[in-house]
Amino acid sequence: MDMDQDPRKRLCFADGRRKVDYVLVYHYRKRSSVRGSPSQHRLSIISNGSYPLGVEEKDPEGGKDEPAEVVVDVEPLDPADGEKIMIREEFEGNLKDAGLEIECDKENKAHGHAFIRLHAPWQVLSREAEFLKIKVPTKKVRHSRAPSESQDKPESHRYFWPFCRYNINSKDTFFDNATRSRIVSFFCFAHESSLLHDEWARYGAFYKYQPVDLIRKYFGEKIGLYFAWLGVYTQLLIPASVVGIIVFFYGWATVETNIPSQEMCDEDQNFTMCPLCDRACDYWHLSTACGTARASHLFDNPATVFFAIFMSVWAAMFLEHWKRRQISLNYSWDLTGMEEEEEHPRPKYETILLQKKQRKKKNKKNKNEVVTLNVVLPSQSGHEKLTWRDRLPGYLINISSILFMFGVTCSAVFSVIIYRITISALMAMSPDPEVKSNVRVTVTATAVIINLVVILILDEIYGMVAAWLTELEIPKTETNFEERLILKAFLLKFMNAYAPIFYVAFFKGRFAGHPGDYVYVFNDYRMEECAPGGCLIELCIQLSIIMLGKQLIQNNIFEIGIPKLKKLCRTLKDKERAPKEIVEQPGRRQQWHLDYDLEPFDGLTPEYMEMIIQFGFVSLFVASFPLAPLFALLNNVIEIRLDAKKFVTELRRPDAIRAKDIGIWYNILSGLGKFSVIINAFVISFTSDFIPRLVYQYMYSETGTMHGFINHTLSYFNVSNFKPGTVPSISSLGKDVTFCRYKDYREPPWSTEPYQFSKQYWSVLAARLGFVILFQNLVITMSMLVAWVIPDVPKNISEQLKKEKTLLVDVFLNEEKEKLQLIQSLFSRDLIQEQQKEQQVSDQTSLPLQQTQPEPVPPATSPASTTPRTRPRAASFSQFTRQMSMSPQSNITQHTAV
Amino acid sequence: MDMDQDPRKRLCFADGRRKVDYVLVYHYRKRSSVRGSPSQHRLSIISNGSYPLGVEEKDPEGGKDEPAEVVVDVEPLDPADGEKIMIREEFEGNLKDAGLEIECDKENKAHGHAFIRLHAPWQVLSREAEFLKIKVPTKKVRHSRAPSESQDKPESHRYFWPFCRYNINSKDTFFDNATRSRIVSFFCFAHESSLLHDEWARYGAFYKYQPVDLIRKYFGEKIGLYFAWLGVYTQLLIPASVVGIIVFFYGWATVETNIPSQEMCDEDQNFTMCPLCDRACDYWHLSTACGTARASHLFDNPATVFFAIFMSVWAAMFLEHWKRRQISLNYSWDLTGMEEEEEHPRPKYETILLQKKQRKKKNKKNKNEVVTLNVVLPSQSGHEKLTWRDRLPGYLINISSILFMFGVTCSAVFSVIIYRITISALMAMSPDPEVKSNVRVTVTATAVIINLVVILILDEIYGMVAAWLTELEIPKTETNFEERLILKAFLLKFMNAYAPIFYVAFFKGRFAGHPGDYVYVFNDYRMEECAPGGCLIELCIQLSIIMLGKQLIQNNIFEIGIPKLKKLCRTLKDKERAPKEIVEQPGRRQQWHLDYDLEPFDGLTPEYMEMIIQFGFVSLFVASFPLAPLFALLNNVIEIRLDAKKFVTELRRPDAIRAKDIGIWYNILSGLGKFSVIINAFVISFTSDFIPRLVYQYMYSETGTMHGFINHTLSYFNVSNFKPGTVPSISSLGKDVTFCRYKDYREPPWSTEPYQFSKQYWSVLAARLGFVILFQNLVITMSMLVAWVIPDVPKNISEQLKKEKTLLVDVFLNEEKEKLQLIQSLFSRDLIQEQQKEQQVSDQTSLPLQQTQPEPVPPATSPASTTPRTRPRAASFSQFTRQMSMSPQSNITQHTAV
Repeated sequence: MDMDQDPRKRLCFADGRRKVDYVLVYHYRKRSSVRGSPSQHRLSIISNGSYPLGVEEKDPEGGKDEPAEVVVDVEPLDPADGEKIMIREEFEGNLKDAGLEIECDKENKAHGHAFIRLHAPWQVLSREAEFLKIKVPTKKVRHSRAPSESQDKPESHRYFWPFCRYNINSKDTFFDNATRSRIVSFFCFAHESSLLHDEWARYGAFYKYQPVDLIRKYFGEKIGLYFAWLGVYTQLLIPASVVGIIVFFYGWATVETNIPSQEMCDEDQNFTMCPLCDRACDYWHLSTACGTARASHLFDNPATVFFAIFMSVWAAMFLEHWKRRQISLNYSWDLTGMEEEEEHPRPKYETILLQKKQRKKKNKKNKNEVVTLNVVLPSQSGHEKLTWRDRLPGYLINISSILFMFGVTCSAVFSVIIYRITISALMAMSPDPEVKSNVRVTVTATAVIINLVVILILDEIYGMVAAWLTELEIPKTETNFEERLILKAFLLKFMNAYAPIFYVAFFKGRFAGHPGDYVYVFNDYRMEECAPGGCLIELCIQLSIIMLGKQLIQNNIFEIGIPKLKKLCRTLKDKERAPKEIVEQPGRRQQWHLDYDLEPFDGLTPEYMEMIIQFGFVSLFVASFPLAPLFALLNNVIEIRLDAKKFVTELRRPDAIRAKDIGIWYNILSGLGKFSVIINAFVISFTSDFIPRLVYQYMYSETGTMHGFINHTLSYFNVSNFKPGTVPSISSLGKDVTFCRYKDYREPPWSTEPYQFSKQYWSVLAARLGFVILFQNLVITMSMLVAWVIPDVPKNISEQLKKEKTLLVDVFLNEEKEKLQLIQSLFSRDLIQEQQKEQQVSDQTSLPLQQTQPEPVPPATSPASTTPRTRPRAASFSQFTRQMSMSPQSNITQHTAV
Repeated sequence: MDMDQDPRKRLCFADGRRKVDYVLVYHYRKRSSVRGSPSQHRLSIISNGSYPLGVEEKDPEGGKDEPAEVVVDVEPLDPADGEKIMIREEFEGNLKDAGLEIECDKENKAHGHAFIRLHAPWQVLSREAEFLKIKVPTKKVRHSRAPSESQDKPESHRYFWPFCRYNINSKDTFFDNATRSRIVSFFCFAHESSLLHDEWARYGAFYKYQPVDLIRKYFGEKIGLYFAWLGVYTQLLIPASVVGIIVFFYGWATVETNIPSQEMCDEDQNFTMCPLCDRACDYWHLSTACGTARASHLFDNPATVFFAIFMSVWAAMFLEHWKRRQISLNYSWDLTGMEEEEEHPRPKYETILLQKKQRKKKNKKNKNEVVTLNVVLPSQSGHEKLTWRDRLPGYLINISSILFMFGVTCSAVFSVIIYRITISALMAMSPDPEVKSNVRVTVTATAVIINLVVILILDEIYGMVAAWLTELEIPKTETNFEERLILKAFLLKFMNAYAPIFYVAFFKGRFAGHPGDYVYVFNDYRMEECAPGGCLIELCIQLSIIMLGKQLIQNNIFEIGIPKLKKLCRTLKDKERAPKEIVEQPGRRQQWHLDYDLEPFDGLTPEYMEMIIQFGFVSLFVASFPLAPLFALLNNVIEIRLDAKKFVTELRRPDAIRAKDIGIWYNILSGLGKFSVIINAFVISFTSDFIPRLVYQYMYSETGTMHGFINHTLSYFNVSNFKPGTVPSISSLGKDVTFCRYKDYREPPWSTEPYQFSKQYWSVLAARLGFVILFQNLVITMSMLVAWVIPDVPKNISEQLKKEKTLLVDVFLNEEKEKLQLIQSLFSRDLIQEQQKEQQVSDQTSLPLQQTQPEPVPPATSPASTTPRTRPRAASFSQFTRQMSMSPQSNITQHTAV
C-alpha cells in the first residue's frame, strides 16, 4: 500500500491538484460471470475523503484546486429491473451537467468495487455558497470594550454577511494569514481526523469540553448537533447526580432515627404476620423483614419527594437550556437564515404514485369506452398525490401490528410474573430449608435477568418491525420517513423497556386480595405481593438492573462487539468473492479503498434512541431511584468517547447533513418530561409509603409522632376465617395464633363489615389522590415558570442580530448615495463620449491629439487616498460591476482592492 | 367651513399636489399671555389624514405627489424644564433631514393649536419600502387549475418579491389599470373611511366577514390583528354556543326523568331538615326546595361533563386556529420577513439612567479625592444600564401593592359575605312572614349587584394602579412597558372579576360546620351555606349576572357614554380657553381641525382586556354555565361593530403600528386555557353533585339505580345535641322531631364517632380527587393532540413559500448566465472602443464616415422580438444598471420596458 504518499496529495485526482470531495462506489460484475441476468451494478455511497463542510464554504478565496461540499443527492436506487448501468450513466451525466468533475477508475477487473471520485470547482462552490446563504465575515470590525475591568484589550467582532462572490475583490487576500493557515489545516483529512481523535475520541479526554465546532466541520451539522446535545445533557446530569447522591445519603443518615423502620425491627413489637403462601408457608414475624425495611428507607424518605420535584424542574431546565444552546449553535454555524427546502419524494413513493396513475388511466379508459360523453376531463396528473385512501391498508396494518406488539410485550411481562409465582411456590414447597430461605432472592434475581434478556431481544425485533411498518405507510419524503420511523420505534421500545417497571410500580401486589380471599392464577397460584418493605424497594432493584444491564450490554456487545463481528464477516465474504484481485494489487490500495472497508453509517437514530430511553430512566421513575442520574452520567461520559471513537475510526464518514435542530427528538424529550411529572406523582403517592405516613402523623397518631405507624398499617385477620386447605400445614407458631396481621387498611374481623376497606383506606386514598393533584400542578406551574423565565434566545445573540441589522441600514444608506453618484458620473461620461463622437463626425480633422478618454468621476464618499490615480479600463469595468451589485458589502470592500 | 373643497385636495399641501401623510399638533401660547414661566408648547400627535399604509408602499409607481407611510418616532417629551420650542425645532430639523417635507400653519394667534403637516416624497417612500422588505408582486404569473371541476378558468398566482426600486422599470406601467384604480380608491380618506363604515362599522353588517385587509390598510397591522383575532374568536364561539345550547336543552329535557330531583320534590319522602339559622328559623321539609333542585339539574347533569371537556379542547383548538390565521395574515400582509427592530429606550428610562450616571460620577469624584491611585478606570458609560438594584424599590412597591390590592379584593368579597349573612339573619328574625319567605331571593340579588358595582369600580382603579406600578419599574422600552402593564392589569382585573365567583364555587358552605357545631362569624352570625339545590346553581346565577352586567355596563356606559361626556367636557374647556379664535375663523376649519376634535386613541389594551376577561367566563367556569358561550357570542357580534364604529368615527386615527402577532395576549390566552382545565375539573367534581351520584350508583345503591340518593346524602342529627339557645324558638314541627337531617356525609348520632366524617365522605372525596386527575390528564392529552395534529403553518402557505424559493433559484441561475454574458459583451465593446481610439489617433484621417458605435450584444436568453432595434445610449445605460442589480426580478421585467 502506498501510504507513504504526501498525505495532502493522497486524496487528490491523478493530477495531484484537484481535491477529491466525494467518492461514489459501486459493485460491478462482468457480464460473462453472470448467467442470463442483467449486470448487477449496485450504486452505493461512501463519503470519506476530505469533506470539510462549512469551513470550505466560508472560504471563498479558493483557487481551482480547493475542495468544498457539494450536496449530491444520490437517490437510493430501487428500480424494478436491471437497467442499472444506464441509470448510473445518466446519473454521472447529471453530475457533469451540474459542473462537477469526475474521475473514474481505469482498472476493470472481472468484478469488484469501482470508485467514482468527484471534485467541485470554484464556480460550483461559490454558486452553492450563495444558494445556501452561507455567511462570511465582513471587513467591518466592531471594537467593543468588555464590561469586565479585567483587561483593556478590545474585543473585536466581525459582522457576518451571506456569501456573495461579487463581494470578493481578491480571492487571494480575502483572509489574513492566520485565518488561512487555520483553514488549510482543516483541509487535510489525516490531520483533521487525528485532531478529532486527540481532542475528542479518547477516554482520556472525558473531562474536556467536546470540540463541537470541529465535529461539525468534519461531520456536518446534524451529527454536530447530536454531540452538542449529548454534551449538554451529560453536563446537566452533573448537578442532578450531586443532588441524587445527597438525597441518597440523607436516607442513609436518617435510617437509624427512622421510627417506622425501628418499629419494624423492634422484636418486642412482635407482629405475627399471615403466611405468604397457602399451606406450605408458616406464620412469620415482621421483625424478620427488618433488613428490607431499612433498605427501603434509603429510597423512601421525604427527601425523595423533594428530589422528584427537583428532577421535574431539572427536565424543564434541560429542555430550555438546550433550546438556547441550539440557537447559539445555529448562530455560530450560520444556520439562522436556513430555510426548509423542498425535498425530493422517496423513490418508493414515486413508484407507488406511478402505479396509481397507471391504474387510474386504465380505469378512465375503461370508463370512456362506456361513457363517451365526459371527454374533456382535465388531466390532473400534476396534482396527483397519494391520499389516505391509498395509505389505508398501511395504516390498518400499522395499528394492528402495534397493538399486537403491545400484546407481545404484555405477555412477556406476564410470563415473567408466572415464572416468579410458580417458581416461588415450588421452592416454598421444597423441604430443603436452605432453598426456602433464599426463595425471594433467587426468584427476583433470575426473573429480572429474564426480563432484561427479553427486553434486549425484543428491542432489536421492534427496531426492524418499526422500519417495516413505516415503509408500509409510504411516507412522501425522507424526513417524513425518518420522523414516522422514530416515533414508532420510540413507542415500541419505550413500551418494551418500561412495561416490567410499570408493572412493579403500579400493579404488583394490588390484585393479590387479602387473607381468606386471595386471588389465584390458574386456580392454583396466589398472585404475588410486594416484599414487606414495600414495592418501592423492588421497583428500585428492577430499575437499577434494567438500566445498568441495558446500558452495559448495549454499549459493550451491541456497539462494539457486533460491528466488529460484522466487519469480520464482510471481509471474509469479500475475500471469498474476489480473492484474486485483493492478492494482485496489495500495493495499490488508495484511501478510498481503506475507507470502504469501514462499517457504513446507519444514521443517528440508534444513538438518540439509547439516550432518550436513558432519559426516561432518569426522569420517569426518579422518585424511586435517586441514583439514576449518577449512573446515567457515568454511562454518558463513556458513551461520548465511545461514539466519538466509532464515528472517527470505525464508520465510513457519514454524509454531512445540514440541520437546524434535533427534530422530533426534542418533542419526544419534552413529552417524556411532561409524562414524568404524573408518573413521579403516582410513584410517590401510591408506590411509596410517604402519604400513609403523613396521614397517620396528622390524622390518626395520638402523640403526633410516627410511633404506632406499623401497627396502624396492619389489618387483623381471624385465622379461623382461612379457607379450608390454605391454613399452614406445619406451623411453629400455629397453636397460639388466633389473629394474624397483613398489610392493608381493612376492617377487623369484629367489625360489622369484616375485611371491607376501612375508613382509613379511603382517607389515605383521598390523601394520595390529593397529593397527585397538588404535585402535578405545582410541578407543571414551576416548569412553565422556568420555561418563561429563561429566554429562548440568549441575550448576546439577540443583541448581535439587532446590531447586524442596524449596520445593514447604515451600509445600505451609503450604498444608495454612492450608487446614485456613480450612475450620474457614468451617464455624464457617456454623454461626453457621444458629444465627442458627434464632434468627431462633424469636424474630424480638428480633433486635438492629446485628447484621451475622460476618467469616471470617483464616488464622493470614497477615500481619495486608496483610489489609484491611473486606472486601466478593464479594472474600471469590473469595479463598476461590483459597485452595481445590490449587496451592501461591496462598498466596504471596494476600495481595498484593485 | 370650506368642506365643499374637492375631497381629494382637502388633504393636500397648499400646492394641492403633495398629500398630507401625517399631522403633528401642539398647543402654543404667546409669551405675553404667560406670566414668568417659559412658553408651554406641548407636542402631541394626531394621525388622521390619508394614511393608506401598505397599499402605498406596495405601489411604487408613484410620481412625486403620492403619499405613503413614514413611521415618525416622536418621543413623548417629558423634559425637566421649558426648552420645548428648541426641542420642537430640533425635531422638525431632524424630520427635514430625513427627507420629509413640512408645511406649517401661518396663523399665529395668541394661543391655540398649531398643525404641522408632513409629506413623504417618493425617495423616502422607496427607501422605507426597501428597509421594510415590503413585498411587491413579480411579473411572473403561475397559472394553476383549481382541482374543483366547477370552472376551467385558470387561477393565476403572482409571486411576491421584496420591493426594490431597481426592479421598477416604469413607474407608470407597473400596475395594470384595474389595480391602479383600486389603489387610487384607497388614497382618499373620505372614500376609504366611508367604505369601512359601510362594510364593517354598521350593526347591519353583523353577519358579514370583517374586511380585515381594509382595516389593516387603514389602521395598520396591530389593529388589523386585533379585529382579525376578535373575528376568529367570535366565529369559533358559534359552535361552542350551539353545543352549549344543546347541553342546556338536554338538561331541560331530562329534568322530569331525573330521579334525584324527583325524590327531592316527592312529598312522601318528607325529610325534616335542620333549621337554616339559630333560634329564629324552624325545621323545614326538603320538598319545599323542589324548585332549586329542578333548576340545578339544568346545569348539573352528565352532559355538562362532556361540555367541559369539549370546551377545553375548544380552547386549544381556538389557539391553534388563531396561530394559523396569524401566519396566513403575516403572509398576505407581507410580515413574514419582518424582524424585531431595536427600540429607543423610553424617555423616563433615559432620565433615570442619566441621573444614575451623574450620581456615579459624583461618587467617583469623591472617591478620587480620597484614593488617588485608581485613576485609569475605563469609562463604562456606553455599557451603563439600570440593574435590578436600581429597580429594587420599584419592585418592592410593586409586590406590596399587588398584595395590598389582593387584600382589597378579598375584603370586598368578604364584606359582601358579611352583608349577606347579617341581612339574612336580620330578615329571618323579622316577624313579617312575607319578608321571611323572600329572604334568599332578596339577599342574593342585592349582594350580587353590590358585587358587580364593586367589581366595576375596582376595575377602573386597578387599571390606573397598574399603570402607576409599571412606571415605577422603569421598563426600558415601550414594548417592555406595555407587556408589564398588561400582565399586571390582567392579574389585578382577573382577580377582581373572579374572586366572588371563586368563593361561591369552592368555598361557600364548606366552612359552615354542622348542626351542633356551626362556625360563627363575629360570634353571632352563622357562616352561610349553599342553597339546598347545591352550590352550582348559585355559581350559575353569580356567573351570569356578573358576566352580563359587566358586558352590558362596560359596553354601554364606559365605551359609549363616558367618551361622549369627555368629548363634551373638552369642547367646553376649549371654548372657554379660546372663545375668540373659534368664533373668528369658523369657515377655515380644515380636515385636521375636525380630526383633532375627536377622542385620542388609548391603545388596544382595554379592548383586549375586555375580551380576555370574557374568554375567562367562557372557558373557566363553563362547566357550571353552558350558556356562557352564547352570551359571549351575542355580546361580541355587537362589540365588533361597536368597536368598529368607535375606531372609524369617534377616535382620532391611531398610529399604524406594524406587528406580527398579538403579543403577550396570546400567552395570557394560552395560560387561561390551561388554568380552565383544572378549574373545570374542580367545578365538576367538587361543586356539582356528579361524583356523589356516580359513587352512590356504583358503590352504595342496592338496586344500581339512583333511587335513595337523596337519603344517602343527608346525615342524621339528634336535636337533643343542639347547643343551648340554638334550638328553634317557635316551631310548628318541633314537638315530633327527634332527628333532623342535613346535607353532609357524617356519622349518625348512634355511631361510635358521632358527627365525624363517615366512610362515605372519604370514598366520595377519593372519587372526586380521582376524577380531577383523570379529567385533567385526559384533557391535557387531548389538547396536546389537537395542537400536534393541527399544523401551525397552513399547507398552502408553506407550499407557496417553498415555490417562491424554487423560483428564486431558477431566476438566480438565469441571472448569473446573463450577467456573465453582459459583462463579456460590454468588456468587448470597450476593447473595440479602445482600439478605435488608437486607430483614430494613429490614422485620424482614414476613419470611415459610416462607422457608428457598436450595439451591445443582447443577452442570449432575451427574446429578440421584444428588444428594440435602435436603442439610444441613455436607455442602454439604465438598462445596464438594472441588469447589474442582484435582484432576481430584473430579468423578468427588463425586456418588457424601454
